[in-house]
Amino acid sequence: MKELVTREERKEFIDKFDNFLFDCDGVLWEGTKLIPGVEKAMEELRSKGKNIYFVTNNSTKSRKSFLKKLQDFGIQASLHEIFSSAFATAAYLKQVVHFPPEKKVYIVGMEGIRDELNAEGIRTCGAEEDAHAVFDSEPIPDDPEVGAVVIGLDLHVNYTKYAKAFTYLKRNPGCRFILTNGDTTFPTHGMIVPGAGSIAMPIIKALNREPEAVLGKPAQNMLETIFAEYDLQPCKTVMIGDRLDTDIDFGNQGGIETLCVLTGITTKEEMLSPTNKIKPTYYIPSFSDLASE
Amino acid sequence: MKELVTREERKEFIDKFDNFLFDCDGVLWEGTKLIPGVEKAMEELRSKGKNIYFVTNNSTKSRKSFLKKLQDFGIQASLHEIFSSAFATAAYLKQVVHFPPEKKVYIVGMEGIRDELNAEGIRTCGAEEDAHAVFDSEPIPDDPEVGAVVIGLDLHVNYTKYAKAFTYLKRNPGCRFILTNGDTTFPTHGMIVPGAGSIAMPIIKALNREPEAVLGKPAQNMLETIFAEYDLQPCKTVMIGDRLDTDIDFGNQGGIETLCVLTGITTKEEMLSPTNKIKPTYYIPSFSDLASE
Repeated sequence: MKELVTREERKEFIDKFDNFLFDCDGVLWEGTKLIPGVEKAMEELRSKGKNIYFVTNNSTKSRKSFLKKLQDFGIQASLHEIFSSAFATAAYLKQVVHFPPEKKVYIVGMEGIRDELNAEGIRTCGAEEDAHAVFDSEPIPDDPEVGAVVIGLDLHVNYTKYAKAFTYLKRNPGCRFILTNGDTTFPTHGMIVPGAGSIAMPIIKALNREPEAVLGKPAQNMLETIFAEYDLQPCKTVMIGDRLDTDIDFGNQGGIETLCVLTGITTKEEMLSPTNKIKPTYYIPSFSDLASE
Repeated sequence: MKELVTREERKEFIDKFDNFLFDCDGVLWEGTKLIPGVEKAMEELRSKGKNIYFVTNNSTKSRKSFLKKLQDFGIQASLHEIFSSAFATAAYLKQVVHFPPEKKVYIVGMEGIRDELNAEGIRTCGAEEDAHAVFDSEPIPDDPEVGAVVIGLDLHVNYTKYAKAFTYLKRNPGCRFILTNGDTTFPTHGMIVPGAGSIAMPIIKALNREPEAVLGKPAQNMLETIFAEYDLQPCKTVMIGDRLDTDIDFGNQGGIETLCVLTGITTKEEMLSPTNKIKPTYYIPSFSDLASE
C-alpha cells in the first residue's frame, strides 16, 4: 500500500494507466452531494484521453438514471461506460441462466433493478406494487409465475416483501435466488445505512439457503464484461474505490492495480490495520487530489 | 422419542406430570384459528387439577392480549400463568441490567414489546411512530436518549426502522442490543413467514455484531422464572411445543421432559431425521389427541 503524496507521484499514477474504473458512491458522490473537486479531476483524465468506466454496486438506479446523475454533476459520461449490479443481474438472468420468458421476477429492491430487467425483456413484480404494502397476516397467494427472487438495496423494504419473497422461494420449485450485491452497508447523506447484503439476510436466515449468485463487486462479472467489450490491458487498468471488500477486492481478484480513496466507507485506520487482509496498491485521501492543482 | 399412540399411553403421560408448560403458536392455535380440539384437551387438564403455564416466544402481543386471546378461544387462563419473550425482555432490562430511567428503548417490533416495557416503567419509541415511515434518505437525527435497541417479530418492519436501529447502535456509546427471541420462522394463517431471528439479521450483518441477549426459548430465563415463582418439581413438569430449536431445546436444556406436537413448524420427517439432534421425550400428532375421547 503506497500513499500518493507528492504531485509527482500522482502524475506518475495517472500516466501509468490508460483505463480508469470508478466506483461511484463514496468516490464521486455521497448521496446527492458531489465530493468537492471530483468533476475537475475527472475532466483532467478526459483531457489526457483516458478511458473511463463507472462500475457501481448501487442497484437503486438504472444506468440511464446514473448517466443523468453524472451529467447533472457536470461529469462527462456515456451510457456504454456505465456498469451496475442491476445491469449485471439482468445480464446474468438473460445470458447465463436464460430466464424463461413465461416466468417473472419478484424484486425486493428499487426501480433500477426493475428498469434493467425490463430492458432485457424480463417481466418483474414487487418493487413498486409492494413498496407501501402493510402486512395484514392474510395468506400470501401462490404465484407460480415467479421464477426468481432478486434482492438489492431497498429503501422501501417491508415485511410484506420479505414474506412474499420467502413464500415464492419456499414454494415455487426451482425458484432462483439472486442478490444484486453483497455490500453490508451503504454511504448516503453523511450516514451509513444497511446495504443490499444486510437487507437480504432475513430471507437467507428464514430459508437457511444462500443465494445462487451475488453479482456486483467483488464478483468478477462486470470486470469480465468490461475487459471483453473493450479489449483492455489489465496492466494499464486501475480500479478506484472506497470499499475494501467490494472495490479493492474486485480489482485485486481481477489482477489489476487498485486505488483506495478515503471519502467513503473505509477509514485510513481500517485500511492500515494489521487485521485488514484486502490491501489496495495505492491510497489517497480523495480522488479529487489527483487533479494537478 | 416415543410416540403416544394408545389411549393408555396418553393417560399415563397426563398422570405422570403435575405441570404443563405450553407453547402457543402452532400448538394451541395458528394465527387466529384454534387448532381443533385444543379447548377440550385443555379443559381435561384443568379438571384433573394440573398446573398450566403458557410460554410463548411471540412478542407481538402483551400478556394481557394473550389472556384475552385465550379467553376468546374458550381456554381458561389467568395473567400470572402467561410468560412471553416480550415480558422476559422487560424483566431482563429492569432486573438484570437495571436500564436507567433517563434512557429509552428503540423498538423494532410490535405493541407487545412496547406494552410490556412500558408496564415496567421503561420508556419506548419506534414501534408505532415508525410503523408506516417511508425512508427518504434524510440524515437520521442523533438521539442520545436511546440506550437500547430491542428487536422482535415486526410485521411492520421497514427500512426506516432498520436505519434508525443501526444508527443508534453504531453511534450511541453503550447502546444495548437485545433480541426478544431467535425464531427464524413463524407459523400463521397456514403460512410460514420470517420470524424475529430473521428480522433482526440486517442489523446484525450491517453492524457485524451479535445481540448481547436473545431472550425467549431456548434461553432459560422464562423457565427459571417459572420454577422460582411456583417452586415446581422438574420431574413433574413437561414442556409441550411444536419447534425443536426453541420449545424442545428449552425443555431439554432445563432438564424437564418434552412433548413435540406436529401441528406447527416441525414435520414428523424433520423430527425423526438422523440429522436432527434435538429430540423430544414424546411426540403426538396434535395436543388435542391427549383428550380422552
